[in-house]
Amino acid sequence: MAKSGHESKVKLLNAATRVVRTKGYNAARVDDVCAEAGVTKGSFFHHFEGKEDLMLAAVTHWDEKSRAFFETAPFHAHADPLDRLLAYIDFRKSLIRGDLVDFTCFIGTMAQEVFDTHPAIREACRSSIASHAAAIEPDIEAAMRTHAFRGDWTAASLAMHIQAVNQGAFVLAKAEHGFDAAIMALEHLRRYVELLFERRADVASA
Amino acid sequence: MAKSGHESKVKLLNAATRVVRTKGYNAARVDDVCAEAGVTKGSFFHHFEGKEDLMLAAVTHWDEKSRAFFETAPFHAHADPLDRLLAYIDFRKSLIRGDLVDFTCFIGTMAQEVFDTHPAIREACRSSIASHAAAIEPDIEAAMRTHAFRGDWTAASLAMHIQAVNQGAFVLAKAEHGFDAAIMALEHLRRYVELLFERRADVASA
Repeated sequence: MAKSGHESKVKLLNAATRVVRTKGYNAARVDDVCAEAGVTKGSFFHHFEGKEDLMLAAVTHWDEKSRAFFETAPFHAHADPLDRLLAYIDFRKSLIRGDLVDFTCFIGTMAQEVFDTHPAIREACRSSIASHAAAIEPDIEAAMRTHAFRGDWTAASLAMHIQAVNQGAFVLAKAEHGFDAAIMALEHLRRYVELLFERRADVASA
Repeated sequence: MAKSGHESKVKLLNAATRVVRTKGYNAARVDDVCAEAGVTKGSFFHHFEGKEDLMLAAVTHWDEKSRAFFETAPFHAHADPLDRLLAYIDFRKSLIRGDLVDFTCFIGTMAQEVFDTHPAIREACRSSIASHAAAIEPDIEAAMRTHAFRGDWTAASLAMHIQAVNQGAFVLAKAEHGFDAAIMALEHLRRYVELLFERRADVASA
């Protein structure tokens, strides 16, 4: 594909993400995505069969971009795996700022709407969330090997719980059109991980 | 209003909830809601000005039904406020079963889609989530007065965090079209509350 053809495809994939983040999957029309991308409908149908085909490709594109974004994030610099895990949570918290459209989740928004009506997109969303959870699992496993911890749980389940809190934080941020509840949810999540690994010993009396 | 008029209104409100839970706000057409309710479009427009008016009334109806549902739930029977709080989390966990459409959240689904496009519905969703969080706050406050706890946090923030985990659990349940991740998220949430209040002392060694 010529460079300009590839560029218009990437513009459409990024525009699809932005339009879904703004108003959801069902409200996102092909016309909206073309307008957001500044690309003609003719060009759109050169690249994609239709909306579902576009959105499936947009999930793959989102996964690649977000993997690169998290792989190069500063939390990896810590030598201790528990420090990396806590810094990952702090990093997620630091992303909750600016426009809701810029930090809320393309994948969670789609899963919410299409789980019953578009099985292929739902499966792409499941796979995307599972890969993101899997990316933090090795640090959790390493922290479990090198630190005492409380309770009977698995690295995989904690990795998925962390995704649950992030997804729930996005829903609350959208409902309040603000950051407070989402930030508090991430702070409770950090405290949970600290308590699991006994990093916090401070006890207040009743 | 005559009894039959009231009945068709309630049918429409319940149908609106069900259709949104199945495919989201934007995909839910007035025709779908009428078909689900078994009510004519003429009757619909006797009760509501249009879709947004219906959905705002459906949020109020949902709030009333869910307040009554939670107010009469068995977790209130415990004498100790911390036991009530843990039993509330167990009760939420017990609801994660059967069809996704029956246990996922009408309010969280709408907030996800309409936060930028329908301010009145977004505000109704914010208020609905805030009331539900406020309903569990007195038990958290009472638990903080009567039990030692770790860390510096407020009853209001923990109440909202509990809503975040529930909302995130619903997103994961929809993405996986199953219960495992959602159940695990609620189990981590219970463990967090236990650790905050030092109910769990079990420490595994690395």
